[in-house]
Formats: sequence, structure tokens, C-alpha cells
Amino acid sequence: MATVPLSAHETHEKKKAPPVAGVLPVFHERWSPRSFQDRDVSPETLAKIFEAARWAASSNNEQPWRFLVGTRGSETYQNIFESLVEFNRKWAGTAPVLVLGTTRATFSRGGAANRHALYDLGAATSYMTLQAAALGVATHQMAGFDPEKARTLLGIPAGYDIGAVIAIGYQDDPAKLSDPAFIERELAPRERKPLGEIVFEAWDHPMDLE
Amino acid sequence: MATVPLSAHETHEKKKAPPVAGVLPVFHERWSPRSFQDRDVSPETLAKIFEAARWAASSNNEQPWRFLVGTRGSETYQNIFESLVEFNRKWAGTAPVLVLGTTRATFSRGGAANRHALYDLGAATSYMTLQAAALGVATHQMAGFDPEKARTLLGIPAGYDIGAVIAIGYQDDPAKLSDPAFIERELAPRERKPLGEIVFEAWDHPMDLE
Repeated sequence: MATVPLSAHETHEKKKAPPVAGVLPVFHERWSPRSFQDRDVSPETLAKIFEAARWAASSNNEQPWRFLVGTRGSETYQNIFESLVEFNRKWAGTAPVLVLGTTRATFSRGGAANRHALYDLGAATSYMTLQAAALGVATHQMAGFDPEKARTLLGIPAGYDIGAVIAIGYQDDPAKLSDPAFIERELAPRERKPLGEIVFEAWDHPMDLE
Repeated sequence: MATVPLSAHETHEKKKAPPVAGVLPVFHERWSPRSFQDRDVSPETLAKIFEAARWAASSNNEQPWRFLVGTRGSETYQNIFESLVEFNRKWAGTAPVLVLGTTRATFSRGGAANRHALYDLGAATSYMTLQAAALGVATHQMAGFDPEKARTLLGIPAGYDIGAVIAIGYQDDPAKLSDPAFIERELAPRERKPLGEIVFEAWDHPMDLE
């Protein structure tokens, strides 16, 4: 394996997107590492992270999000871990906390289908990840897991849809990753589409904002 | 109509959720008004709001979000407005900007269905609303519109799913709202479930974080 010259801190600095004047730094500072320290995340810190999630907007203020939190050594942690695809099992077990995001698929009043249930879960989870970043806590959301396996292992009722798994912990040195491919990803620059590819004044007519 | 004693500023102060030490203030300060000033939102400000959206996390870094932006007087604005349900037409026309959030339903590489397309759009949109709040710009997301009418009027292809409409502008006094029911909502306290109803260590077993 090639020498990895960067520490956790140096990697974090390198991963930050370029700041933009007037834009909150937290959007550019949040990223998704795979190398996590042994260090636990305290209940007080988790409370702050979920406090942010509480205040997300939701359709009809339904707040459909429900988070299942597994801390290392717990049965919930083990069940979430077992639902991961092999690729993610290679690194996610170093994170001290694994969360499964679920969302109520119908409105509590009236019972109609809530077509924004996953959309609102995505919002609440993004609040979590931003608040974590503000506390120096790293998060990594994963789509790579078997949602039906997770449903069975964790006993999630049919009326709830499953979103993503979120690894939470403190970022560690890239060199501690088991797989050279992970180290490469850990050090690769973050990439995003320019505004011209995501903001339009009519379909296929980019808006001139830059 | 009863006298409304609160100005836009007083209403905003009253709407803020109680701050929590260590939690970024922006989560508690963002809320969704219905009364908007005539004042336009500059392209520079919109660029900052969408810059935040760029950096949301997404499954496979697909960045599936595409935003259609209507500024007052434009055809896009009119088309988004016409897709709203009557309830929202009563107030949303005062906002200088109406955005329709859409999301690519398949992965660009391989073409498989992206089951997180709406989830990721919800995340990117929440970044927008937080960044707007940080700039003193108000946003109000709406589920109350006809997505198929919006699709037809705006020419959105079948491969894209439709999320929410987002009104963007500067908050105005509640008294300027046309309907007493809107004024009442504008002044009502924001309510959220306690952590014990959204964070669990096993299904139906709340986590002790408070």
C-alpha cells in the first residue's frame, strides 16, 4: 500500500469545498468519510444532532421521520450493520453509531398516503448531518443496504418507509482504512455539478446566476 | 378583522424556536411565512441559496436535483403559480420567486431507478432553505399543488419526479395577509414532536437523550 501522507485533520481540510462569501461554512465543510475513530459519540452530542432534525420542515408538519439508533455493541447496531451490503461492511463497522432513518408513509390525520415522506426524511437527515458537522462529528449516509432485511431484523412495520443508513462518529486518518480503494476515495476531491446544470429558468434553459 | 399587533420583525422573533446550546441557530430560526414583501430577491442572493443546495449529499453523488426558478412576471412563475391549489394561490402570489424542485428518477450511469431521488431532493432543498434563512430570506415549501399540471405546463420529462414548490422572498407583516386564517397561522407558535417520539434505540423503545 502506498504511503498516505495525510492525517485526519489534513484530510478534512483538503475535503472542504471552497468557501463562498455569504454562504454558511457548514455546507462546504460537511463531507462523508469512511475512516472513524474508536471514540464514542456521547448522548449529549447525539441529542444536539437530533435536536436539529426536529426542526426540519415537513408536509403538513407531519414530522414523519423516525430514527433507529444503534450504538456500538447494541443489538440495533448489529442489525443495521448486517443489513449493509458487503462494500459498506468493510468500513462502516468502525463508526460508533449507525442510524437507520425511517418515515411514516401516511398522514397521522386521515391516513392518506404522504408522497413527501421520504423527501421530508431526507430534509431532517440533512439537518442532522449539518449539525453534526458543526460539532466536528462526521456522518456518512449510505444507500447500500438491504431495506427489507433491515425491516425484518429491526421489526419496522409496513406503514413506515426506509430511507438511508447514517454512520456517525469522529473522523480518523485515511491510512486506517482497510482497502486501498477506500483510501483513494477518502482523499479524492469532492465534486459537484455547476449551478448551470441544476438551476433553470425553464426546462433545459439554465438560469444565469454566475 | 382583529388588530394584528406584530410587525414582520416581531413575528419572526416570536416564531424562532428556543435556542439550544451547541446547536446552530439557523435550524431554530428558519420558519415558513405566508406574508412576503414586494422586494425582489437578487440573482446574487439566489446564487448563494442554490450554492448551498449544490453541496448536499446524494446517493452515488448523483446530485439528481433540478430546480425550475420562476421570478415574478415570468412564464415559469405563472406556470408554477397555476399549478398550486387554491389555498396556496391565496398567499403565494406575493412571493417574488417560486421554485419547483424536480429530481432525476434514474441514475445517469446505468439507468437503474434511484430510490433516493426524492430523499436527496428533500436534502438539497433543505440546504437552500437554511442558507436562505441565514441571509434573512424566507422560504415556504408547499406540497399543495398539482404535480401533473406542473409537469405539463412546465414541460418536465417523464424521467424526473416532482418534489415541492418553494416560495422565496422577504417576510412581511402578518396583517398584509388576505385571510384571517392565514394571519392566525402566521402568529401561531411552531410545534415539533419531542425527541422521545422520533429517536429510538429499538422500534417503539425511545432512546434516552433528554
